[in-house]
Amino acid sequence: MIKTGIVGGTGYTGVELLRLLASHPEVEVGVITSRSEAGKPVSELFPNLRGYLDIPFSIPDTQALKECDLVFFATPNGTAMTMVPELLGAGVKVIDLAADFRLRDADTWHTWYGMEHACPEILNDAVYGLPELNRKQITGASLVANPGCYPTAVSLGFMPLLRAGVIDAQYLIADAKSGVSGAGRGAKVGSLLCEVSESFKPYGVDGHRHLPEIRQTLAQVAGEPVELTFVPHLVPMIRGIEASLYAPLKQMDVDLPELFMQTYADEPFVDVLPAGSLPETRSVKGSNFCRISVFRPQQGSTVVVSSVIDNLVKGAAGQAVQNMNIMFGLEETSGLDQIALLP
Amino acid sequence: MIKTGIVGGTGYTGVELLRLLASHPEVEVGVITSRSEAGKPVSELFPNLRGYLDIPFSIPDTQALKECDLVFFATPNGTAMTMVPELLGAGVKVIDLAADFRLRDADTWHTWYGMEHACPEILNDAVYGLPELNRKQITGASLVANPGCYPTAVSLGFMPLLRAGVIDAQYLIADAKSGVSGAGRGAKVGSLLCEVSESFKPYGVDGHRHLPEIRQTLAQVAGEPVELTFVPHLVPMIRGIEASLYAPLKQMDVDLPELFMQTYADEPFVDVLPAGSLPETRSVKGSNFCRISVFRPQQGSTVVVSSVIDNLVKGAAGQAVQNMNIMFGLEETSGLDQIALLP
Amino acid sequence: MIKTGIVGGTGYTGVELLRLLASHPEVEVGVITSRSEAGKPVSELFPNLRGYLDIPFSIPDTQALKECDLVFFATPNGTAMTMVPELLGAGVKVIDLAADFRLRDADTWHTWYGMEHACPEILNDAVYGLPELNRKQITGASLVANPGCYPTAVSLGFMPLLRAGVIDAQYLIADAKSGVSGAGRGAKVGSLLCEVSESFKPYGVDGHRHLPEIRQTLAQVAGEPVELTFVPHLVPMIRGIEASLYAPLKQMDVDLPELFMQTYADEPFVDVLPAGSLPETRSVKGSNFCRISVFRPQQGSTVVVSSVIDNLVKGAAGQAVQNMNIMFGLEETSGLDQIALLP
Amino acid sequence: MIKTGIVGGTGYTGVELLRLLASHPEVEVGVITSRSEAGKPVSELFPNLRGYLDIPFSIPDTQALKECDLVFFATPNGTAMTMVPELLGAGVKVIDLAADFRLRDADTWHTWYGMEHACPEILNDAVYGLPELNRKQITGASLVANPGCYPTAVSLGFMPLLRAGVIDAQYLIADAKSGVSGAGRGAKVGSLLCEVSESFKPYGVDGHRHLPEIRQTLAQVAGEPVELTFVPHLVPMIRGIEASLYAPLKQMDVDLPELFMQTYADEPFVDVLPAGSLPETRSVKGSNFCRISVFRPQQGSTVVVSSVIDNLVKGAAGQAVQNMNIMFGLEETSGLDQIALLP
Repeated sequence: MIKTGIVGGTGYTGVELLRLLASHPEVEVGVITSRSEAGKPVSELFPNLRGYLDIPFSIPDTQALKECDLVFFATPNGTAMTMVPELLGAGVKVIDLAADFRLRDADTWHTWYGMEHACPEILNDAVYGLPELNRKQITGASLVANPGCYPTAVSLGFMPLLRAGVIDAQYLIADAKSGVSGAGRGAKVGSLLCEVSESFKPYGVDGHRHLPEIRQTLAQVAGEPVELTFVPHLVPMIRGIEASLYAPLKQMDVDLPELFMQTYADEPFVDVLPAGSLPETRSVKGSNFCRISVFRPQQGSTVVVSSVIDNLVKGAAGQAVQNMNIMFGLEETSGLDQIALLP
Repeated sequence: MIKTGIVGGTGYTGVELLRLLASHPEVEVGVITSRSEAGKPVSELFPNLRGYLDIPFSIPDTQALKECDLVFFATPNGTAMTMVPELLGAGVKVIDLAADFRLRDADTWHTWYGMEHACPEILNDAVYGLPELNRKQITGASLVANPGCYPTAVSLGFMPLLRAGVIDAQYLIADAKSGVSGAGRGAKVGSLLCEVSESFKPYGVDGHRHLPEIRQTLAQVAGEPVELTFVPHLVPMIRGIEASLYAPLKQMDVDLPELFMQTYADEPFVDVLPAGSLPETRSVKGSNFCRISVFRPQQGSTVVVSSVIDNLVKGAAGQAVQNMNIMFGLEETSGLDQIALLP
Repeated sequence: MIKTGIVGGTGYTGVELLRLLASHPEVEVGVITSRSEAGKPVSELFPNLRGYLDIPFSIPDTQALKECDLVFFATPNGTAMTMVPELLGAGVKVIDLAADFRLRDADTWHTWYGMEHACPEILNDAVYGLPELNRKQITGASLVANPGCYPTAVSLGFMPLLRAGVIDAQYLIADAKSGVSGAGRGAKVGSLLCEVSESFKPYGVDGHRHLPEIRQTLAQVAGEPVELTFVPHLVPMIRGIEASLYAPLKQMDVDLPELFMQTYADEPFVDVLPAGSLPETRSVKGSNFCRISVFRPQQGSTVVVSSVIDNLVKGAAGQAVQNMNIMFGLEETSGLDQIALLP
Repeated sequence: MIKTGIVGGTGYTGVELLRLLASHPEVEVGVITSRSEAGKPVSELFPNLRGYLDIPFSIPDTQALKECDLVFFATPNGTAMTMVPELLGAGVKVIDLAADFRLRDADTWHTWYGMEHACPEILNDAVYGLPELNRKQITGASLVANPGCYPTAVSLGFMPLLRAGVIDAQYLIADAKSGVSGAGRGAKVGSLLCEVSESFKPYGVDGHRHLPEIRQTLAQVAGEPVELTFVPHLVPMIRGIEASLYAPLKQMDVDLPELFMQTYADEPFVDVLPAGSLPETRSVKGSNFCRISVFRPQQGSTVVVSSVIDNLVKGAAGQAVQNMNIMFGLEETSGLDQIALLP
């Protein structure tokens, strides 16, 4: 049994991680910290866990965390970086579900997150935890930066096209849509049911924090800098991300569905739909799948990709468990066999 | 491995049964029939099943069903009764998720369902599959009538009070609310998102088909006929039933929470909440739990019970799997360990 | 033109009041105050008002309010009572949409609202603004206590039965359900879309603040104290209240639909549905109607009433405008002719 | 008073038209036809109209329609074209809310709608009813083709850019999202709450019927054929369309917000938001506004426009009323002063 700890488990990423870990056959949740809820059983905050996980939240305590084999950070941005070096030094592996270790460049991080990075010296040791891109490096990693939700959906959608070099990487458009759980469990007017239900809107057009992360990944895949316009939108639903991706085709004679099928043939969690089918977010609700389709409308010169994930699973907690499985040599799908809840 | 067949798997009860059976460790789904969808892979209709269940729907064929150990009927009311006697005769066990075998009295069935019953002679052999009431009889049953969704929520809520004889059974009120999946996957104007979203309404005040079923169960528990007013309501959500139950207390000195705790102490799927807590349907979404609270507001003479289930799980497919587990001597919770999806 | 002021216009009651007043033919909105948003145009906070109302929020200023003919308070409980006496003294009429003047008894108010009442001496001057009950008194009133949302729906439903004396007022049950806007625009975790969407739950079973208010009104109608069990529930939608009411009939030979028709024959905003029809909240969305049905299921001894309103209109801002119309001798329906938005 | 008739008033476009006409000061609804609902009061089908419109549906009858000044067709595609020539011959004006007269080319119509056009000879007499583009022609028109919902949102968004010639019309992308009411009130599995709620998906990527309509309009504005990729998506809400539009800028030194402000300065129903603001669909719910923002993210070479409408108002019934007002010389905003319902 792998002994895990969770720092900051009171948000939606936290409760989803608890749901997955509580039924993982090879994991034990030893510690879950929350300064604000210390002493309260997690199942009091999250009644779905009643009968499955009856430990209480505890005050963050480095000593207790050092006794874990693996610590997940499900904290706001800027918290993990203050604790991770000490844990790594104690031989504890870390998966950070926040953004602290996603960008390789400390200055870029500073620009987008508005804080000095607390440990820029270890940014290069962190592995960006997108298994479909970096599986080998994750295997040996001590510190994994779990990707953002939008970056996961967008990167998996563009990857086959960029790898094959069939699109013009200087005019990429990602029109992405997310359920409200992506905004977290914080008490904000903007996330109230009455503010977001029965409405749809774009946001962050001027620059969303996931933009540099996506660019970094796509540039790695393309082998050159990319130009990307990224517009996120808020969907009146709880879970799910859909990204509609657009790019000019450089090559017209490529069998796009076949290209996607081949790219992801061995991937346990990327499901390329049969030609002509389109994905819907509910087909992945509660599951770790990314389902993808590729189209060339009216046989024109624009390729359209639609990629869906559950932002809390493949876009957060599920991908973290997938990374854990890889890091610890477990079956990659272990504890991740939940079938999406439909309807 | 228990070989199962499903007749009529294109509705919400059907897809939920498939979700549960596909991940049940001791069950194999051998046959799934649908006249309208014959030949189509189930995962084409229900993309959440892609990668988990790749058999196609087939035309209903008694011979193939006879090779199963157990056949589930997830058909409209009135279908199972035409096929069940032959299957029982061939030694196949049957769980009917529709209403054909729920009422013991063929005349009452006729009155409420508007059809002659096709096999009234076996109504007495059918066991009403509410494990918390009839576990022993289910163990030896060949034919189980899986309870309706409202009857499950209402019966589990009134049961402790009626058994203990602390309420007046002549003035019971059940104000029940259901998500829209209870209306099925049929193409009806009344179930369109634009008709039911952002709205709330009572329906069936004049008489809902679940009324005689609930009365029958409550009378069995009370040992006398009961008077019940049952008003169902439609909630703008997919899954979930909440039943608020009201009754006049005959005895004031009873510790109500304690009574409920004791009644359900050994039940794996009934969770009595700590005194003062109230249930919410999302705490059971996708899970087989019924969560219950009991209150005596302002220390008055009216007891209030709130009982929540997922109508497609404990109210249908999950309870069917629970009954199967009991009938076949499996662990009662086998294949039913999904934690509710929250948020 | 009646010159109006609004104190505290940043909540849902406030924006709804602005929507109604901005298109009222005989009203001008002179002042709208908000300490937190002072200086910001109201249409920046509420973009639906762009082009209709372009004044800014201002810091609360008694002098400016004294120049109004009428001041609405759309503030949290406990604010109006500190300002109202001075305004009344200056000859300004007041409608309080909060609870400060709803209960006649200062001690009861203290018990339920946890504050000393700041001006108990004027509680008896306040008229409870339910026009269907107190129209005559409202006509001459200087201070109107606008009823709560639940009390409006419940009181209008029980009123015909209690007036006619056909039910036992010692065993009343009100099972009420409200959309989330009833919880206000405050940043609370419990009102987040991800907390309340796709879920349904009772709350406040132990005692909701609207309970004493409803009791007071029903007792006034019945001419005797009443026993009422009141259980509110939260519905995953924005607007709308449905109250299902239950009572034992003392008299069986009464034509219930006819009784309701007669009671409300002259009421412009109470619509008794034809016998056999049931109301749905969407039929009043955005409108000032209360629609009501009455039933006697299975010709038993329990009467069931279902009453629906839009909690922000007839349950708050619309009723306030109706009261204003009455107080100032305008056509009672003036500015209240919006047809409900369906779908 | 203008005497109007409505053919086919049982869908969502129909009920919305009734809502608007019932409170229009200069219009009388004389006839409303529906073969399936003939004899039933419209307020029985649409209870929001109770008290506002009490005429019944009638069997379609050309004679009765000929007595109207104006007939609206809210019928499925292919119906209006069989009746319009006769009505025009009798001097009746017509506004078709379906697609029969939107495309100028009968062959293109045939290709996309799969029917022979019944009266291709009058296609050139029909005026495409987008007031912001064709106001002058609408003034004198006898037959107006009311635009589709997506085409309205997309065309108003691209129009300023194409007119000014600042974008490359050979690489336009429209990523559009619609509430479910756009799919109509027909009983289809795909529009059930349980199928579309809590999910988001693209559809019609291969070719949506609104594509040729949008292309026709944009080409008219640009003065040259355009290349457009149009991907519609389904949003789990009732009303609203948001279109996010992308195009390569040919000219970098243009003040985009200013360009939009000037283009729409005199338009009563197009609201260009202040620079930096983004629209949300709820800000137009129930109103005839189109609200628009324009952005140039990271000062790059891609322009992004976001345009929102209520698909049933500016995208259908409201625009039809606006066209009627223009055709009959009424104030263009008459009967269209509803403020959006927020929240």
